[in-house]
Amino acid sequence: MRIALAQLNYHVGNFPKNSERIISSIERAKAENADLVIFSELSVCGYYPNDMLERLEFITEALEAIDRIAAHCNGIAAVVGGPSFNPSPKGKMLYNSAFFLQDGKIRSIHHKTLLPTYDVFDEYRHFESNKDFTLVEYKGQKLAITICEDLWFNQKVMNAFGRENLYETSPMEEYCRQNPDLVINLSASPFSYHQEKLRKDILLEDAKKYRVPIIYVNQVGAQTELIFDGGSLMVDHHGKVVKELAYFREDFAIVDTLDQQLCELQPLTETNEKIYQALVLGISDYFRKSGFQKATLGLSGGIDSALTLVLAVSALGSENVKVLLMPSQYSSDHSVNDAVALAECLGVAYETVSIHGIAESFDEALAPLFHGLSHDLTEENIQARIRGSLLMAFTNKFGYILLNTSNKSEAAVGYGTLYGDMNGGLSVLGDLYKTEVYSLSQYINRNKEIIPLNTILKPPSAELRPGQKDSDSLPEYELLDAILYEYIDQARSVQDLIDSGFDEAVVRKVVSLVNRNEYKRFQAPPTLRVSSKAFGFGRKMPIVARYPL
Amino acid sequence: MRIALAQLNYHVGNFPKNSERIISSIERAKAENADLVIFSELSVCGYYPNDMLERLEFITEALEAIDRIAAHCNGIAAVVGGPSFNPSPKGKMLYNSAFFLQDGKIRSIHHKTLLPTYDVFDEYRHFESNKDFTLVEYKGQKLAITICEDLWFNQKVMNAFGRENLYETSPMEEYCRQNPDLVINLSASPFSYHQEKLRKDILLEDAKKYRVPIIYVNQVGAQTELIFDGGSLMVDHHGKVVKELAYFREDFAIVDTLDQQLCELQPLTETNEKIYQALVLGISDYFRKSGFQKATLGLSGGIDSALTLVLAVSALGSENVKVLLMPSQYSSDHSVNDAVALAECLGVAYETVSIHGIAESFDEALAPLFHGLSHDLTEENIQARIRGSLLMAFTNKFGYILLNTSNKSEAAVGYGTLYGDMNGGLSVLGDLYKTEVYSLSQYINRNKEIIPLNTILKPPSAELRPGQKDSDSLPEYELLDAILYEYIDQARSVQDLIDSGFDEAVVRKVVSLVNRNEYKRFQAPPTLRVSSKAFGFGRKMPIVARYPL
Repeated sequence: MRIALAQLNYHVGNFPKNSERIISSIERAKAENADLVIFSELSVCGYYPNDMLERLEFITEALEAIDRIAAHCNGIAAVVGGPSFNPSPKGKMLYNSAFFLQDGKIRSIHHKTLLPTYDVFDEYRHFESNKDFTLVEYKGQKLAITICEDLWFNQKVMNAFGRENLYETSPMEEYCRQNPDLVINLSASPFSYHQEKLRKDILLEDAKKYRVPIIYVNQVGAQTELIFDGGSLMVDHHGKVVKELAYFREDFAIVDTLDQQLCELQPLTETNEKIYQALVLGISDYFRKSGFQKATLGLSGGIDSALTLVLAVSALGSENVKVLLMPSQYSSDHSVNDAVALAECLGVAYETVSIHGIAESFDEALAPLFHGLSHDLTEENIQARIRGSLLMAFTNKFGYILLNTSNKSEAAVGYGTLYGDMNGGLSVLGDLYKTEVYSLSQYINRNKEIIPLNTILKPPSAELRPGQKDSDSLPEYELLDAILYEYIDQARSVQDLIDSGFDEAVVRKVVSLVNRNEYKRFQAPPTLRVSSKAFGFGRKMPIVARYPL
Repeated sequence: MRIALAQLNYHVGNFPKNSERIISSIERAKAENADLVIFSELSVCGYYPNDMLERLEFITEALEAIDRIAAHCNGIAAVVGGPSFNPSPKGKMLYNSAFFLQDGKIRSIHHKTLLPTYDVFDEYRHFESNKDFTLVEYKGQKLAITICEDLWFNQKVMNAFGRENLYETSPMEEYCRQNPDLVINLSASPFSYHQEKLRKDILLEDAKKYRVPIIYVNQVGAQTELIFDGGSLMVDHHGKVVKELAYFREDFAIVDTLDQQLCELQPLTETNEKIYQALVLGISDYFRKSGFQKATLGLSGGIDSALTLVLAVSALGSENVKVLLMPSQYSSDHSVNDAVALAECLGVAYETVSIHGIAESFDEALAPLFHGLSHDLTEENIQARIRGSLLMAFTNKFGYILLNTSNKSEAAVGYGTLYGDMNGGLSVLGDLYKTEVYSLSQYINRNKEIIPLNTILKPPSAELRPGQKDSDSLPEYELLDAILYEYIDQARSVQDLIDSGFDEAVVRKVVSLVNRNEYKRFQAPPTLRVSSKAFGFGRKMPIVARYPL
């Protein structure tokens, strides 16, 4: 049987565009004599529509689109993802389904069993779990149709508790007991820098354990925070890769289930290269899918804004990016020079706006309220808010989107000004710790100096008062990031961190900062996710609470 | 059997304080010769701790607190809510449990069956569902111990689809088949202005249907956005109310299951009074539980800031509130006068800061970028951002919290400036449509004029340009709010609204504004929830998407 893997980039809710893409892949598969073409999870509506799934008109549009697509399935079959109604009057009203389309109509519907509801996943909010494990017979072959998490029964649960299985039912067990010839998996598996290996391990182990080939089709492209990396696969029943599709772009391939030549497993891409590609895709899809072209940001001469600019230029082209330099009396000359050097190196237009006069007018206006009080964090925040307001004025006047340049270390400890440097439509680096920002910057510079060396080498500073350095109020980033990673990404306890050798006072200070700043992160922009634990909707913490320390 | 209902206000994660409160209620119940005392859902940790439940140290602290509480249960039994470990290696690692404490130790643990995972509820994210329906025998009585949603099997599912039941198993059915003498229900049922009636209806019907008395103990107090209203109940097996506890405050009562005299069902409180009490509790718990005393806001002379101020003063006392008046050249004299009149009427300190000079300095700084372009929305936003920055400067300098004054109509259509008037630690009115703001303001004034009549009567205006009125760019609020309510709260489709008589062009404009402004609401402050569909984590919409229109 000749099977096409169609790895496409969908736009959530855009039924006309998504259907058009799906139909053109069906036509291509027909032209190339495929018997069957497979799409990814919820392909007709894009993953993840969230509470749009609670709107009747959304489901109606999805089902109409499926019907339109089915009409093209003559002489070929297709498996397309979409929501379907639960016919039982009990339970959630929808299933997360795979529609098997043949002879111009829906032949059967297969539902997802394991509904991830943790981290960034929210599927039990909308879907009922499948209990029917019927195989499909097609061209003399028995096919098991599964959806994403259905293959992840044996995942190691990544948290402090160390469980065996997150679910009670193993869909692979249920299906494979009926000896399918092939397992098909429609996925929407978001990128994180560990995910590629994890995912391959799971697929290879499943194929080997059940001695069944698996075809896995993932979506590609970014949906606000989540970046899907593609990398669709066919694995044979020995657990060897037969076909691997591209990462971070659309792809299409045909495999023959009878004639399987092993392909070389592509070597895992270097982490920095993966993160680079993911962030560039994240930015470009954010803009393309929301109908914007042009980005701005405040270029300070520091490393965060420098790296953000490089990524923005890769994603949007230098002609679509324009930056503001907003020095104050506390900005060093080299900062301005570094910023200018980078803008010129990248061919990016820039404007310089001094914040001095505005800061003075704030001082004047507030003088009657603040009389006799010395300058403190208040005035530092005012500077950040003036810059934030200037950038927003620029976006308002000319239709740009402001990119936020905060990193994960700053977001973690609240080292940033709400309504100031925390402004932006999208946080590009908000899931990279400062040490990872350095690492990615060095990677950018691996062949030639793009980010000025001085920007990378000088001690990090917010430059909001004379001679200020980040290390005045925070531990050095090597130490800070190590503690943050263990506490946030690994969910290790304070006591556990102290026991493993971190200084108690430093740990308590850092953890207290993390917990106290939930209120700031609550109002932060959406953040491109590249790790397995990003701030945002994958980490839901109460604001008004006492945190154990 | 004498049973005490302990309706307490918990602080999420504050095990020492919560245990202390629970223990003192146990001692009081003992002193009053009760046999059993009942607390609310997750009482030991407060509802809802969210992803703090993923931290091992949090669960450990909860279990230690339960043990400490159990030590006080001699000569009395208690039912306390808290998380417990799932002993099976499969499934989620926790249960949402009720601990039956007797003879100084945990006698049995009973788990929640129905895990609400919709709107503001996220319980399947953390908990496995119960499958064991064993009754407890105590003092010759058979008790069924249930948790909140367990009684809500027969709820009408509030959405566009119209389902019969949201769940497959009915815990009441399972328990009542064993003929319990009493059903106990530990709850954390958040307030919305329809909830009190809904909840009573559910309880009365359940009691009548299964001919069993029900004791329902709810928590009281606000947890950031969610406000719990108490109103714990005992209903007899005829479905008649035997005892009803206070709303919006802690309460304690003892009922005798053998000697049941019917109590008068308190008349349902008037909606405005309920909303008033809910918002005052919401503000005061936000401050108390996060350790702050003092609030500020920008008082414009308009109705939203006026109402917010009245509520803040009720919650915190006039001595803890100080407001800023920040007129511009577009502010009318009567606005300033109305603001001053209200501040003086409430005995609230105020300061006036002109934004004119700052606005000029922004104009000057931006002149080289904006040369030749006329003033537009950009400059209106700058005014709002100057005010937002001044308010934040005031909070930074003196340790205040800024209260946000936006209403739900504005939040819905994006009629507000991000990083400007959308600033604040807590949105007080963000779940009240503008027409509801008027209604509550008139209620405030029912006995005497507190909010200046002029503030209520004049046409709403942002006063960001000469002679501006909200109705220049929006439909009149009566119409706007009607459309918003149907589209957002009732999830009705555009076509459905048009079919029911709304003007098509107006509906399409309003709905398009709602959808286009997800990005703004994403960065809005947490909002006190009073309706059954508030913006925030109870309504999760993608930002980058095409919405069906």
